Amino acid sequence: MRVARAQDLMADVGLDALLLTTEPEVRYFTGFLTRFWESPTRPWFLVIPSRGDPIAVIPSIGTPLMGRSWITDIRTWRSPDYDDDGVGLLADALSDYQRVGVPDGSETHVRMPYADLKQLENKLGFALKSDVGIMRQLRMVKSTVEIDKIELACGVANRAFTRVSEIAHVGVPLRQVFRDFQRLCLEEGADWVPYLAGGAEQGGYADVISPATDTPLADGDVLMLDTGLVVDGYFCDFDRNFAIGSATPKTQEAHAKLIDAVEAAIAVAKVGATAADLFHAMDRIVTGGAGGSDAGRLGHGLGMQLTEWPSLIPADHTPLVAGMVLTLEPGIDVGGGRMIVHEENIVIEESGPRFLSAPAPREMPIL
Amino acid sequence: MRVARAQDLMADVGLDALLLTTEPEVRYFTGFLTRFWESPTRPWFLVIPSRGDPIAVIPSIGTPLMGRSWITDIRTWRSPDYDDDGVGLLADALSDYQRVGVPDGSETHVRMPYADLKQLENKLGFALKSDVGIMRQLRMVKSTVEIDKIELACGVANRAFTRVSEIAHVGVPLRQVFRDFQRLCLEEGADWVPYLAGGAEQGGYADVISPATDTPLADGDVLMLDTGLVVDGYFCDFDRNFAIGSATPKTQEAHAKLIDAVEAAIAVAKVGATAADLFHAMDRIVTGGAGGSDAGRLGHGLGMQLTEWPSLIPADHTPLVAGMVLTLEPGIDVGGGRMIVHEENIVIEESGPRFLSAPAPREMPIL
Repeated sequence: MRVARAQDLMADVGLDALLLTTEPEVRYFTGFLTRFWESPTRPWFLVIPSRGDPIAVIPSIGTPLMGRSWITDIRTWRSPDYDDDGVGLLADALSDYQRVGVPDGSETHVRMPYADLKQLENKLGFALKSDVGIMRQLRMVKSTVEIDKIELACGVANRAFTRVSEIAHVGVPLRQVFRDFQRLCLEEGADWVPYLAGGAEQGGYADVISPATDTPLADGDVLMLDTGLVVDGYFCDFDRNFAIGSATPKTQEAHAKLIDAVEAAIAVAKVGATAADLFHAMDRIVTGGAGGSDAGRLGHGLGMQLTEWPSLIPADHTPLVAGMVLTLEPGIDVGGGRMIVHEENIVIEESGPRFLSAPAPREMPIL
Repeated sequence: MRVARAQDLMADVGLDALLLTTEPEVRYFTGFLTRFWESPTRPWFLVIPSRGDPIAVIPSIGTPLMGRSWITDIRTWRSPDYDDDGVGLLADALSDYQRVGVPDGSETHVRMPYADLKQLENKLGFALKSDVGIMRQLRMVKSTVEIDKIELACGVANRAFTRVSEIAHVGVPLRQVFRDFQRLCLEEGADWVPYLAGGAEQGGYADVISPATDTPLADGDVLMLDTGLVVDGYFCDFDRNFAIGSATPKTQEAHAKLIDAVEAAIAVAKVGATAADLFHAMDRIVTGGAGGSDAGRLGHGLGMQLTEWPSLIPADHTPLVAGMVLTLEPGIDVGGGRMIVHEENIVIEESGPRFLSAPAPREMPIL
């Protein structure tokens, strides 16, 4: 059970309680799944004590939904409350503890007003400590149920990608392609589509995080669509590239190299290898071993969030463990300030890696 | 200009610089619009000095997109960097300043790892100060361009709501209705659909933040769909209720009361009235003046985010100013632990309030 595992780790590092404030942290222990986190107004708190059951300290608007979870100790207030937006209630819930940890490392933040965070520490009479990576350690290795949900999400995206020929051809504005692709994701079973990025320019694209413009697709463009859609609260995160009208041999070679890079990573993605090993396997092929690019990494974990630990970078020596779900995301510079990026999703199993996305062919499809 | 207005306010309160870390804060001054914030991995920083131009301190993956903004001082690093994920670069950018403010009040948080935040304060040799509500003050009053974008978003939702009869009737699982409604929003012109909540139960629903279940719609259900969709980076946020098959007179009366409540708020929503005045106008009708409910408020600001300041609660005495965009969101208890919630979007103008959503009829449509 997740709470018991957390409590074992807390005992190891001498923490009396964990204080959690973000959507995936709260959901990990409670199953509390809602899109209401899109509203930045209200803080939500979950306390995992070193012994006993979790305490949810939440706005009363969440009472019915949290009441349907397994959590029984639910303490609520009417938020927003300008005099005290839950800080007093939270301090009470933490009053029996001395060493309270919060996730404070890479890829985390404390989701509450900074003034309230300082007020909480004043009320408690001590500074919050680090969770020493406990949440990272727990969430980085997925259960079978979690992997199944990620695989469902990947399946939805697989089916949507096979239908891109319905929506993308010369003359269609990229912004329309983006709208239509999200529609395809919903039609194929996505609960919602929190992330879609991409690009379409001649032989490659200048960046991979821009929103779509109204520029129509043109012959010779490489269209990339990178989606993070959600099924049952779990993400997929992979992309596909499409040649619009035609592709030069150089463009197809670049794409084939990306597939080679993924295959090189697959060859080493065994239990006991490290995140850095995957990076180097791909980097050797896409840059000849330059050691990195402006994207910062060549893949990452995924699950309850679009991106999670670990990072496929030279400095990440996290050993691969069965149950880790990763993206392999090599990019290649095609000159003129443009690139092509390819991405697949895999799970690490005892017997080796297994694709969760349906691996793309070496040759880019021409639409 | 936004930076000049911020600098005037900073001079008033004696701040040398503002440090901004969240998506709307960074976008407000730079126009940097990307869905990449969905990834929690990388921190992004913007410094607004009390004199001179902003400094963007950002991961290098954002260089091309930020390079197309008006910002010229862009300092980048390859993130994620486990040794220093931008903290050193940010400390350098802040080295000329002594009094650095961050948004630290209601509805804010500092989006960077807490360990890095403390390290930043150590490097600077002083604690970050409060922005004293400067960002709230700036963002709460919208420009004409911003209001036009919110109105575009409202128009998309208006059109999608007129098509709900295509997707919702007895026997359709609520989860499918949710998927199809998001598809309608995209077809009608949404760039993306960050928020959809709702419910469907007999005569009302138990809460308004749950994700959809597979339960099929039944005769007598009240179906509510509440969407926050985005056009050009700006949200709408309103809902509509639909009677499935039939509605009892009691259910229709409850809905009519919600329309009455909105009209009562409209009657007082003039420049110089307060957020609390709007609350009381609606609360008198929906509870007889009980002073609140578990939802916590009866409306709020909206714009770059689904929910923004102010809150329509008794304690919020923010005076209404021309250019504020608000939701009016009265809810009514229909017994048996169920409620009906109605929501409209308005803009405050010098001449009075104006609907941005097409106001719903008193009688709930029957599907």
